[in-house]
Amino acid sequence: MNEVNTHKCKIAVDAMGGDYAPLNAIMGAIEAFNEKKDFELILVGKKDEIKKVLTEKNLSFPEENIVHASEVIGMKDTPTTALKQKKDSSIVVGATLVKEKKAHAFVSAGNTGAMMAASTLIMGRIPGVGRPTIGATLPTAKGNFCTVYDVGASVDSKPQHLFEYAIMGSIYAKEIFGIENPSIGLLNVGEEESKGNKLAQATLELFKKSDLNFAGNVEGRDILAGTVDIVVCDGFVGNIILKFAESIIGLLKAKFKNYAESSFINKLKVGMAKGTLKAVLQDMDYQKYGGVPLLGVNGISIIGHGSSSTLAIKNMVLRAKEMFDKNLIQKIEDSIKNYENKV
Amino acid sequence: MNEVNTHKCKIAVDAMGGDYAPLNAIMGAIEAFNEKKDFELILVGKKDEIKKVLTEKNLSFPEENIVHASEVIGMKDTPTTALKQKKDSSIVVGATLVKEKKAHAFVSAGNTGAMMAASTLIMGRIPGVGRPTIGATLPTAKGNFCTVYDVGASVDSKPQHLFEYAIMGSIYAKEIFGIENPSIGLLNVGEEESKGNKLAQATLELFKKSDLNFAGNVEGRDILAGTVDIVVCDGFVGNIILKFAESIIGLLKAKFKNYAESSFINKLKVGMAKGTLKAVLQDMDYQKYGGVPLLGVNGISIIGHGSSSTLAIKNMVLRAKEMFDKNLIQKIEDSIKNYENKV
Repeated sequence: MNEVNTHKCKIAVDAMGGDYAPLNAIMGAIEAFNEKKDFELILVGKKDEIKKVLTEKNLSFPEENIVHASEVIGMKDTPTTALKQKKDSSIVVGATLVKEKKAHAFVSAGNTGAMMAASTLIMGRIPGVGRPTIGATLPTAKGNFCTVYDVGASVDSKPQHLFEYAIMGSIYAKEIFGIENPSIGLLNVGEEESKGNKLAQATLELFKKSDLNFAGNVEGRDILAGTVDIVVCDGFVGNIILKFAESIIGLLKAKFKNYAESSFINKLKVGMAKGTLKAVLQDMDYQKYGGVPLLGVNGISIIGHGSSSTLAIKNMVLRAKEMFDKNLIQKIEDSIKNYENKV
Repeated sequence: MNEVNTHKCKIAVDAMGGDYAPLNAIMGAIEAFNEKKDFELILVGKKDEIKKVLTEKNLSFPEENIVHASEVIGMKDTPTTALKQKKDSSIVVGATLVKEKKAHAFVSAGNTGAMMAASTLIMGRIPGVGRPTIGATLPTAKGNFCTVYDVGASVDSKPQHLFEYAIMGSIYAKEIFGIENPSIGLLNVGEEESKGNKLAQATLELFKKSDLNFAGNVEGRDILAGTVDIVVCDGFVGNIILKFAESIIGLLKAKFKNYAESSFINKLKVGMAKGTLKAVLQDMDYQKYGGVPLLGVNGISIIGHGSSSTLAIKNMVLRAKEMFDKNLIQKIEDSIKNYENKV
């Protein structure tokens, strides 16, 4: 067991991360702290900027819990270059806190690529994990949720990587979403075993030999249909689906706008339908849920959207706390080891 | 120029293809004929069943234009096996008519895989085409359409195949959709040139060297945003996106249903919003547009959804006619040859 696990949970938050930093990041982190209290909050970033926000908002916060980082990785910086050049950036400093066991978790709404790279390279991977992964949880027609792994942590995956995503995703679904025995589907172009590209075919063989709750091949439509709890695929495919899914609301808005503009009656109709639509679409707006963990790194790493609201940051911190309480990193390590011994 | 091009256009329709065959297939084909007249219609399938429908519907149709096929490939038959075992199926017979230059086009709403395989193996490929491709045309927030190639004709594509999809898709967009200089995007996980899997990176190099109207890498969100007219990707990715897109309406319906069931007021609200929604969603229901061509085979091959309506079949036949009138197969052959000489 990690040294820090015997101590009180410590969560570091990137105060400089996100389009509305430092305000949203700090306020969200403090709201989470005020709700839970039973953890130590560390704010990482430019000390003067952090203190300015704390003063403006009349918040008392222990100065020793502010860890100064003189640089900021911008949203448009190239991740690998930024990591090398900005050694004193909040993302590098935050990930290093976890590496040095000065924190259990690091939470950031900053540059996603830099956060993934820093977490992987600085915190390191959980023993036995080939590639860390990031999932996207989408609503389904059944009313439950389906989480797709990987949605962009890596591309050109090997079958073993997809298998690891399933193991890690299963633990996360069980511990965090409370799904007792999460079902797993392998994303493919058809249900039949003969279908698919080389990667899918080879991955299928791995799954068939395992005792994971594997439901077989699933198709693109099965994600929103809610056929399974977890869908695994290469990060190239997953990332494209995620961004495609994110763009659906934009299309619907445009369609409704055009319809409204076509006649006065239609304008009235759309006006009346708007509230209903909004209510219906709100759980498709997954941004409110907060960030997502990078699973497979040796520490808790939560990555949020650049546009994260205070609520999103708060939820990210609370999620980090929950992952700590449930000892998720250790559980992933144990499970990966367990499957290594079997396969 | 092909022998048949000097003659009147002949379009063969699979009377046995689709969930509502032979009725929808026959009625749709005859409606198209009644609208255009300037082509010869051939119905392929079980002669007695075809004649029964014609009699029931009081339609006069020249018996010599019914080409008998004693077998039917079912919607669930395995394509390659079915092609071997059912040599006298309507799909094999129809594709053979094109091969033997007894027809210019073959239209079917039957087993998609069998139709793709029969078209490719029997009609053969246009010289220079490595792999035929099938596209899916989706509505965009801009009000125009974006066609994604390939959506499932093949997987594990090579860069050259994606390049061919772009050439063929450009001709189709220009000739059929009337887009003078269609823009092409390469589907990727980011816009930067360094992004992507090995296939995307190698394909990017091919595009950069060409004089196609290439807009660079595009992301999953760019499809529905309408950033480009054509998006190219491997058929594994495209097929998953297409099926994902098809499932969106199901999710929306389920969400509205749940919302309506949550209270009486909500039920009234959804009741009022329904008509608006339907009107707005209707152009997302691409089924009404009819089938899609398998581009790259040496003849016109139009493949429709199993659930094709009479209107969809009619549109498929009219599309085949338009492709003939615009000499599309020859134009693809010329363009592929042109690029072969350059690359």
